[in-house]
Amino acid sequence: MSKIVKVKNLVLGGGNRVTIQSMTNTPTADEQKTSEQIRRLIEAGCDIVRLAVCTNEEVDVCKRYIANFDIPLVADIQFDHRLAVRCSEIGFSKVRINPGNIGGEDCVKRVVDACKANRTVIRVGVNGGSLENGIIGGGADALAESALKGVELVNKYGFDDIIVSVKSSEVKTMIQANRIIASKCDYPLHLGVTESGDVCDGTLKSAIGIGSLLCDGIGDTIRVSLSGDPVSEVLAARNILRSISLDKNYCEIVSCPTCSRCSYDLESAVREIKQFTKDVAQPLKVAIMGCVVNGPGEAKNADLGVAGGKDKAVLFAKGEVIKTINQSDIVSELKNLITKFLSEKNS
Amino acid sequence: MSKIVKVKNLVLGGGNRVTIQSMTNTPTADEQKTSEQIRRLIEAGCDIVRLAVCTNEEVDVCKRYIANFDIPLVADIQFDHRLAVRCSEIGFSKVRINPGNIGGEDCVKRVVDACKANRTVIRVGVNGGSLENGIIGGGADALAESALKGVELVNKYGFDDIIVSVKSSEVKTMIQANRIIASKCDYPLHLGVTESGDVCDGTLKSAIGIGSLLCDGIGDTIRVSLSGDPVSEVLAARNILRSISLDKNYCEIVSCPTCSRCSYDLESAVREIKQFTKDVAQPLKVAIMGCVVNGPGEAKNADLGVAGGKDKAVLFAKGEVIKTINQSDIVSELKNLITKFLSEKNS
Repeated sequence: MSKIVKVKNLVLGGGNRVTIQSMTNTPTADEQKTSEQIRRLIEAGCDIVRLAVCTNEEVDVCKRYIANFDIPLVADIQFDHRLAVRCSEIGFSKVRINPGNIGGEDCVKRVVDACKANRTVIRVGVNGGSLENGIIGGGADALAESALKGVELVNKYGFDDIIVSVKSSEVKTMIQANRIIASKCDYPLHLGVTESGDVCDGTLKSAIGIGSLLCDGIGDTIRVSLSGDPVSEVLAARNILRSISLDKNYCEIVSCPTCSRCSYDLESAVREIKQFTKDVAQPLKVAIMGCVVNGPGEAKNADLGVAGGKDKAVLFAKGEVIKTINQSDIVSELKNLITKFLSEKNS
Repeated sequence: MSKIVKVKNLVLGGGNRVTIQSMTNTPTADEQKTSEQIRRLIEAGCDIVRLAVCTNEEVDVCKRYIANFDIPLVADIQFDHRLAVRCSEIGFSKVRINPGNIGGEDCVKRVVDACKANRTVIRVGVNGGSLENGIIGGGADALAESALKGVELVNKYGFDDIIVSVKSSEVKTMIQANRIIASKCDYPLHLGVTESGDVCDGTLKSAIGIGSLLCDGIGDTIRVSLSGDPVSEVLAARNILRSISLDKNYCEIVSCPTCSRCSYDLESAVREIKQFTKDVAQPLKVAIMGCVVNGPGEAKNADLGVAGGKDKAVLFAKGEVIKTINQSDIVSELKNLITKFLSEKNS
């Protein structure tokens, strides 16, 4: 298990909740647009917001974001260590640097000194597209080695509040690199597949890369990188966490693909129940199953469920058969059960 | 690596191409609807089609599907071993049974004898919702144990043309169960997350479960189970294979999530290039990147690429800088490069 690192009010690592990150893509110096985007990210459920900071002018504007928002903000710094130092000084909760491109050991030391003085966390972040030694597509070993070298350098100056990321646009490489890192250090890991494409392609690549690591207990905070509105990154991240039961505060619908054995319109039932439960923010598992093969099993294993039979259907609650109903009543009966279940649970 | 098992004209296992499966959800006895669905599945790129067979009447209609389609067809049999025997006799390429629910050892023997005589492959398929011992949500160990027991039984009667599946509606359980199976036998594995929900939820769960196993070299044939049109299962399966480079015959777009550093409309460029390349059926990797941080690296690593700069952008081909262009020309210049690249490659 990773060690704990605090980022403002958030506790990362040590088996705590996996947090969701995103990054603004509005001009950082445009206070109105960027404030609005930060607000939308928070509303969508983002836990940590990162901003690219490239100029002193942008640093000055960032002071106001730090003053105006409670959410931990992270400065993304490339190349110029002086910007990292200033971002630490003005109160960013974390700075993300790649020690390999920040100007040499002296520059890393200056960033570390500032972060020590200002209690700023450092993310050592290495990407396949920008390895310091110019190895492009250099594979998992090169990525991991580069990140561990960066960590070592930050350690050397007596700093321990570190989060590590190794990202690649290739899913397999990203998985392997993170496994190496997880086996060699115990800092919290920030997971992401980088440059993963648009919302469709990027969500899929991220789900495989991030999801498979999380299933093995690797990873403490995640970012889904998508070419598009960053709010979609937060929604995708949340859906990944839900898919693997790391976020249970919603209505999970377990439903079969149907086959010739299913004699009712299961697809519509799933659609209606999904719509009906879209605002549920507590654990609820509903199984909507077509037939007697896996139906009763899955329905019993859920909080509530229905399994189709020849002409009828059987309703389940908390593992027990409730009653046999007509197939035309499946949706209405399930809605009643859900309403009752939630009101009992919340009373 | 798994051993090779032939399913009609397809070679499964042994590191061969990962094949895509789906299952009809029209009434098996309805020849017109089911034939139409099989045709649509083939058109979408499905390699193997499964049908639920529950009655003798359905077996008779299946003779015509077997006669009319070249694609390997699989009979999904539950409970009644006589149907499995008949399906083998009429020429199904594979029968899927759960030896734990088919009526006892004698019944398994009869199915095996028929499959031996007719050279039918057997899939030993176990699902979390229907474990023979009634353990529901019984975890990875119970699932794997149940499948291995089934395999052992089929082996006992001298049969070796086996494909194994262990499915669960819980992603982690499915991953762990398959890892156990892969460590204990070398039969080709059929991967799937079962009862995974609608197209959105189900694709994500399947991507994580199937994708992470494939990334570790586990799995030979896959089915994405979705509550909906089975054609969407084939498209989702293909996208999963593409995400992890197991299908490279398309245009992969590597593109960044953009941040404050990006000064052109990258999202639109990605959309236009994706549309422009949607019919490309050979390996092509195009990087569309916002800035100089990871831009040049990813662009060099792709066949073709563009990396945004302050006001301009730099075009790359085969790892080399081609020229500097105006940002307003990014899409048209990329289209020209793509057309040229493909015509040179295909000439």
